[in-house]
Amino acid sequence: MIAIDWGTSSLRGYLLNADGTVLDQRRGSDGILACQGRFAEGLSKLIEGWDGPLLLSGMIGSRNGWVEQAYLPCPVDTTALAQAMRSYNDLLPGRTLWFVPGVSTGEQHGVPDVMRGEETQLVGLIAALGDGEHVACLPGTHSKWAQIANGQLTGFATVMTGELYAVLRQHSILGKLMQDDHAARDTDAFLLGVDRSAEPGGLSHHLFGARTLGLFDRLAATALPSYLSGLLIGHELCDHHGDHGAVHLVGSPSLAQRYALALAHLGVKSQLHPEDLAATGLFALARQRELV
Amino acid sequence: MIAIDWGTSSLRGYLLNADGTVLDQRRGSDGILACQGRFAEGLSKLIEGWDGPLLLSGMIGSRNGWVEQAYLPCPVDTTALAQAMRSYNDLLPGRTLWFVPGVSTGEQHGVPDVMRGEETQLVGLIAALGDGEHVACLPGTHSKWAQIANGQLTGFATVMTGELYAVLRQHSILGKLMQDDHAARDTDAFLLGVDRSAEPGGLSHHLFGARTLGLFDRLAATALPSYLSGLLIGHELCDHHGDHGAVHLVGSPSLAQRYALALAHLGVKSQLHPEDLAATGLFALARQRELV
Repeated sequence: MIAIDWGTSSLRGYLLNADGTVLDQRRGSDGILACQGRFAEGLSKLIEGWDGPLLLSGMIGSRNGWVEQAYLPCPVDTTALAQAMRSYNDLLPGRTLWFVPGVSTGEQHGVPDVMRGEETQLVGLIAALGDGEHVACLPGTHSKWAQIANGQLTGFATVMTGELYAVLRQHSILGKLMQDDHAARDTDAFLLGVDRSAEPGGLSHHLFGARTLGLFDRLAATALPSYLSGLLIGHELCDHHGDHGAVHLVGSPSLAQRYALALAHLGVKSQLHPEDLAATGLFALARQRELV
Repeated sequence: MIAIDWGTSSLRGYLLNADGTVLDQRRGSDGILACQGRFAEGLSKLIEGWDGPLLLSGMIGSRNGWVEQAYLPCPVDTTALAQAMRSYNDLLPGRTLWFVPGVSTGEQHGVPDVMRGEETQLVGLIAALGDGEHVACLPGTHSKWAQIANGQLTGFATVMTGELYAVLRQHSILGKLMQDDHAARDTDAFLLGVDRSAEPGGLSHHLFGARTLGLFDRLAATALPSYLSGLLIGHELCDHHGDHGAVHLVGSPSLAQRYALALAHLGVKSQLHPEDLAATGLFALARQRELV
């Protein structure tokens, strides 16, 4: 089968054999934003020479994607997601495309929350973890914190850590004192930020401290980006890691390792999982639907 | 005397008589940013025809201002600030200019915090309030929360509420769903945001809710800016109003009234003070130094 993980700024394809082993993988150049609506063209190029049932997940199923898919409310499991997949024969000549829906926390619980793409990575994680209660964190522009219980995704929350970092770095007064945008580089400054996040005063007050520490030469201009990253990730962790034991981290190794470092600093265990859980998840969904 | 309140983006002058009554007031067109270093020119124009001792406070005494002034560490009172004023005879022909220093929380207490200009407004507030313990909030781009005890400014904290609102509105994914930048307009949406800020999950998670409420058509695009404002101000209040009774608000009437509304919604009393407390404060400092 062919598994496609198509996000806002990335496109990844995997060719899997009948037991789910990855035979081949390719990266496309265009996420859905850069694609500018030429989805058929982008996908054709990516999967040239590959055959088999074709499953897609991620922002490709959003309003700005190819065909908008519904959000399934929590709790959901692999079976429910597989049953809710919709197929299209008219998008790519000679191919049937299966789209995975997004997931919402449901509108009845106050402010709703949504994910697209992460639900498929979580299906892959659930296949790996089996039963029991687990907390998963998928760090990124909009980090997701998911509660998993006995194979079900029971709830989740989005935290805008990555986007806040980017807009504050580029557009706020904080960025003006900073040099070198390598947030992971200065471990001491990063952990100072994590420590600070556990103190009273709130995020918006702590952020101003990144300015005064620079003004008073207490942190070098090159250390301030790491401090800012530590503040934002620290607040995310303090608000969301809960008391559920180890946190399962799914994301790019460099970012996941930074979260693991901050969690360890706070006395919380974590376990890193491979970034390509989307392929594992799409395979589990295909098998559940008896497409493979 | 002449009292000058010169900030990053505003310039205000007051002519006061010997008992502190405002005889005349003028607004200049240029804050220190727009002034581009031509401070003497800007000031000459503003005070044309006015005579008397000349006191200045605000960002004009910062590194990017006219002559950089020190920060006095807390606790400080009117006497200490008056004694720390420095005079210059060489900046404007025939005039002596007195600069008020800034105030810091002191470097010994973890992350330092700073103010410039607000200390002078607080001197004016202290003159009005007299002895006792008070909490003051000066809302703005960088809001200040000050603790006052028996005529002393004992500590304070900066919260980046106004700047966060601006960068999120203009540069984040949240702004894309929003219409009409009149944060004060939709009172219901504003108070929904204030309510939300008291719930668990943290600011960065609550911010994402401004997107999902828009996606699910639960809030109109025109209501979302007010909701965002309510979230940010609500978090500021929850983190800083403490249990000190009424909050003394000093700022522009429209902004101070929005804070008063949010505080009332949270069951906290507040009292609004006139925006031109800087003139009152500069007069108190001049009298303390026996310049008037």
